[in-house]
Amino acid sequence: MIDLRTDTVTRPTPAMREAMAAAEVGDDVYGEDPTVAALEAEVAARFGHEAALFAPSGSMANQLALQLLVPPGDELLCDADAHVVTYEVGAAAAYSGISSRTWPAVGAALDPDVVVGMIRPDGYFAVPTRAIAVEQTHNRGGGGVVPLSTLRRLRAVADEHGLALHCDGARIWHAHVADGVPLAEYGALFDTLSVCLSKGLGAPVGSLVVGSAEKIARARFLRKRMGGGMRQVGILAAAGRYALAHHVERLADDHAKAARLAEAVAPHGVLASEVRTNIVPLDLTKHPRDAHAVAAAARAEGLLISVLGPRTARLVTHLDVTDAQVDRAAEILGTALRA
Amino acid sequence: MIDLRTDTVTRPTPAMREAMAAAEVGDDVYGEDPTVAALEAEVAARFGHEAALFAPSGSMANQLALQLLVPPGDELLCDADAHVVTYEVGAAAAYSGISSRTWPAVGAALDPDVVVGMIRPDGYFAVPTRAIAVEQTHNRGGGGVVPLSTLRRLRAVADEHGLALHCDGARIWHAHVADGVPLAEYGALFDTLSVCLSKGLGAPVGSLVVGSAEKIARARFLRKRMGGGMRQVGILAAAGRYALAHHVERLADDHAKAARLAEAVAPHGVLASEVRTNIVPLDLTKHPRDAHAVAAAARAEGLLISVLGPRTARLVTHLDVTDAQVDRAAEILGTALRA
Amino acid sequence: MIDLRTDTVTRPTPAMREAMAAAEVGDDVYGEDPTVAALEAEVAARFGHEAALFAPSGSMANQLALQLLVPPGDELLCDADAHVVTYEVGAAAAYSGISSRTWPAVGAALDPDVVVGMIRPDGYFAVPTRAIAVEQTHNRGGGGVVPLSTLRRLRAVADEHGLALHCDGARIWHAHVADGVPLAEYGALFDTLSVCLSKGLGAPVGSLVVGSAEKIARARFLRKRMGGGMRQVGILAAAGRYALAHHVERLADDHAKAARLAEAVAPHGVLASEVRTNIVPLDLTKHPRDAHAVAAAARAEGLLISVLGPRTARLVTHLDVTDAQVDRAAEILGTALRA
Amino acid sequence: MIDLRTDTVTRPTPAMREAMAAAEVGDDVYGEDPTVAALEAEVAARFGHEAALFAPSGSMANQLALQLLVPPGDELLCDADAHVVTYEVGAAAAYSGISSRTWPAVGAALDPDVVVGMIRPDGYFAVPTRAIAVEQTHNRGGGGVVPLSTLRRLRAVADEHGLALHCDGARIWHAHVADGVPLAEYGALFDTLSVCLSKGLGAPVGSLVVGSAEKIARARFLRKRMGGGMRQVGILAAAGRYALAHHVERLADDHAKAARLAEAVAPHGVLASEVRTNIVPLDLTKHPRDAHAVAAAARAEGLLISVLGPRTARLVTHLDVTDAQVDRAAEILGTALRA
Repeated sequence: MIDLRTDTVTRPTPAMREAMAAAEVGDDVYGEDPTVAALEAEVAARFGHEAALFAPSGSMANQLALQLLVPPGDELLCDADAHVVTYEVGAAAAYSGISSRTWPAVGAALDPDVVVGMIRPDGYFAVPTRAIAVEQTHNRGGGGVVPLSTLRRLRAVADEHGLALHCDGARIWHAHVADGVPLAEYGALFDTLSVCLSKGLGAPVGSLVVGSAEKIARARFLRKRMGGGMRQVGILAAAGRYALAHHVERLADDHAKAARLAEAVAPHGVLASEVRTNIVPLDLTKHPRDAHAVAAAARAEGLLISVLGPRTARLVTHLDVTDAQVDRAAEILGTALRA
Repeated sequence: MIDLRTDTVTRPTPAMREAMAAAEVGDDVYGEDPTVAALEAEVAARFGHEAALFAPSGSMANQLALQLLVPPGDELLCDADAHVVTYEVGAAAAYSGISSRTWPAVGAALDPDVVVGMIRPDGYFAVPTRAIAVEQTHNRGGGGVVPLSTLRRLRAVADEHGLALHCDGARIWHAHVADGVPLAEYGALFDTLSVCLSKGLGAPVGSLVVGSAEKIARARFLRKRMGGGMRQVGILAAAGRYALAHHVERLADDHAKAARLAEAVAPHGVLASEVRTNIVPLDLTKHPRDAHAVAAAARAEGLLISVLGPRTARLVTHLDVTDAQVDRAAEILGTALRA
Repeated sequence: MIDLRTDTVTRPTPAMREAMAAAEVGDDVYGEDPTVAALEAEVAARFGHEAALFAPSGSMANQLALQLLVPPGDELLCDADAHVVTYEVGAAAAYSGISSRTWPAVGAALDPDVVVGMIRPDGYFAVPTRAIAVEQTHNRGGGGVVPLSTLRRLRAVADEHGLALHCDGARIWHAHVADGVPLAEYGALFDTLSVCLSKGLGAPVGSLVVGSAEKIARARFLRKRMGGGMRQVGILAAAGRYALAHHVERLADDHAKAARLAEAVAPHGVLASEVRTNIVPLDLTKHPRDAHAVAAAARAEGLLISVLGPRTARLVTHLDVTDAQVDRAAEILGTALRA
Repeated sequence: MIDLRTDTVTRPTPAMREAMAAAEVGDDVYGEDPTVAALEAEVAARFGHEAALFAPSGSMANQLALQLLVPPGDELLCDADAHVVTYEVGAAAAYSGISSRTWPAVGAALDPDVVVGMIRPDGYFAVPTRAIAVEQTHNRGGGGVVPLSTLRRLRAVADEHGLALHCDGARIWHAHVADGVPLAEYGALFDTLSVCLSKGLGAPVGSLVVGSAEKIARARFLRKRMGGGMRQVGILAAAGRYALAHHVERLADDHAKAARLAEAVAPHGVLASEVRTNIVPLDLTKHPRDAHAVAAAARAEGLLISVLGPRTARLVTHLDVTDAQVDRAAEILGTALRA
């Protein structure tokens, strides 16, 4: 099967497995795993922040960041399709008591003025807004890249209103490669970021939350409460270090492959938005077949795609997809969409 | 001072005070207060529901309803300016773990198709949507009345997707009077409603949550947990019963007064939306004076208005405002806005 | 029926009703109700604290205090039979995220050394203890009075370990009358207290949380979140002011009546503990009849008592019980326990 | 350094590393990791339950189980020194809203009659008790083994009162080896169990929650919400499978080593309780040196021990401690305690 459901399905490469097998480890709950410490230091440095913390998932990394920025009962603003209010199963409200209001789902085409209009300052008897979350690249927004200018404007808005700014940067590596913006330039714009090793970078498990030393010390405490404190997890951190060293720049290949798939799909009028990175979003609202039907047709020919809603689907390129598979996937899709 | 900040400032009338002084009471935590029981039965009957429960505030009535409809971590959809995500200080998330996404603030001009587009069904790895909340009339939406046709369409949407529908009906009495829709017709459309006695109806304290017998039995338990179980609260329920008997139909007067204020304000280009009920919303975005300046100028002349944001203000008519005061308020506002 | 289930069943006296009917009121959510303000000032002054806040129930007053003292996830220590972990339906955990460990149920016979042994200081990888709660008098502890010397020792313990000390003083008035300890002397020992107007004092509704000006300002915000913000609630506060003025010292009568009932009960070997105030606790573990049977037998003769567990029951004297009723209750109980 | 702080410090053996390097993996969030599935099936089978779920930590495994058994606001009973209310940083209250009352810290010497006396049945206006948690072996209880007869009596109590019974079985393997009770015999007594691979068994990371198929399906959903969904985590599961196959029966060695340390310590009068498994608990209450001083003295000679409180410390034997190290540790301790 050609698996284009998502980039989390990648399996560790032989070299990555070797790095894991050889990893020096210690008890990370006690802060004694040298490989984890090295990974955390490296990621913090790449983003120009003081510290970073390893977490078992992107969801936990995001939730730790949100707990750092928004006290229980106070408010977070984000996109209506943001991962933090979609795929984290309500954790922000359920576990952290964070109230959320959302701007309309626009993916990367975020308008800071719309955000400004939603902010509730202290002192008007309303729940005070404390933070804004941005997603880079935007998952349900088809892998779109939020322009640096937009992010800078949002930072100014946050400063003006005394708000914190969080980046769900699970795929920020893709934005970095697509737009050529240095990671540290992104890092400078946010109070906290989460970044993921197990999506495009191909590590088996792991995300990090990035921020100031004080924030990350608190996150370490909160991670224990969330059940994310692990022991000799340097095994996984070693894969992450390998991925950082070898799998960032190669994301350009994934982007090129996605572009080829987009070309194949475009004539059928189902491309939901321009393809900038490794995601090809399909909008089947006007297509005779719905998302389940197209996915079933593709699966019958050996291609797996993701169904995100009754009329929404997605292809994602990644480390484990060959050029030949992309060609075959384009063919299969053409057939599935023509029928 | 002429107090047009809001309709919660009304003081009980002499007849209402008499009703309170004469109220038969018992321990309502044990379900033994006959006046409370009578009020609950009467409100339930007006809305054609099986049961109702007295609560110390509209916020608690709404929160009890939301706890009935949405399990912790699951999702509520509502307007970005809804009372439940604005003036209840984050309670839905903080106390009930309810995740929320919001459609753009449109007040009464709600588009059910926009709501449909936001629903997340079970089975797509996303937080499942469980309920939709509507506000009738819409407070920050300038007292606008959601048309019955819109509500019916929303009910159909809720049924189709297996969702619950809640009405924050703090001022549903105003909608009933403005549009002539029977309360039971509204009642039939919602799984739960909250209604308020201490806003337009002029009782000192109290709201009710309305629903099925099973839901209200559960709400009684949850009310104890929220700290809303009170003892001889028939004192307050007596005021509510008096208000229901004498202060509903007279809301037409408040609407007429608001219309006169709207006329006075309209020429200055600051009327935020059409005035249908007892709220006159001001949008000062394009006015030379901001909300604080206009409020200060009015206060200096003996008129209190509400500042809802840097450029947003509000006038509300109610039981304690005379015709002469409305005339004077119109003059003061004219001056404050001309300057 | 003679109602000795609890002291919350009292109905307002004619004079108290008159005070309510005449109360000057305003919108207390805006801090504009003069009667509420006067009540809050008076209660704060009686306990020698800076401020106090009216709440719709003792549960809410306690929960507000606990939220002030213990951040979500941190720890409260209290008696296993404390009201805060028994009759508040899990609110401390459910709404405030407060973790609790309990010492064995000993009522007023609290041993500070046992408490010391339970404290978890910061820095040992364990959930840090933040506060200790004491109940004065102790409800399930049979209305026992915690000796002043115990409370002073607990204060020293709290200071030594950097913990806060809360008093659930729903019936602290009874302790004051029984032991002659000035309220301000109690007040000086606690960071926060809750006190109740609707139990022994006979007001229909209301409790207050007492503390520093800063804490109470925060409590006002949290009260809104809990749904406890009420409007012209001076109606109820007037009853509370009347109760404070006229119903405190008379509690000695209730204590005397409870003592007479205790005498009637003692020969049957079912008195759970010495009767110091207005509660007569029955332990039916060794009695041939269980609590439900005794209560049913008493009810058949016109006496209501509280069943607290399969083998536990309680009588409570209060404002609405006459001497003749006490005599009759003693007779009825004698019969019910002999049979 | 000889590290006897705890058994979580073990490092994977070469054979275990090999197993990890060779592990077949898939995306476990999609349920597609064969190694995780095999581990889950194997653990479920060992305990005679239908299903099991891998989690990144023992804390998360416990918290998932508690969420399955106790609705928010309802009550859990446990030992005052239980891991679930000590070392999980308040998660049960903070994230799951679970109210807790505790019996006095007695470790394995649990008296079911004391538990019975604490249960609050439905229907008495009190928070209803829903579950009892037991810890086997008991961590702060010095690795004590709860006798099978006690557990059977607790199961009967739970059944009689309609409660669930959870076993925090992080070190249940030690109980199995010490008492010779089959794991399935333990399994049959509990609604849910958590078991740990990274303590005595020596795997780097991982715990499992065990229960019915229905419960575990729900736990899978809740694990995502807690941020515990991981991708190609078969890497870690492979270590767990290796540990299960090779490191269970060898725990007898760790027990023997702990017994030798206990002998060395006993003459100094600081052994807190009989040593049954791999934990040697020190009670320094009557010793001239406190826990920090003893730990510092030991550290200076090359031995690490755990300080659990000002006068409490602990030694734990494990896979990475040699016989020679145990001899040397005994010497060092003798010196540290003599001084």
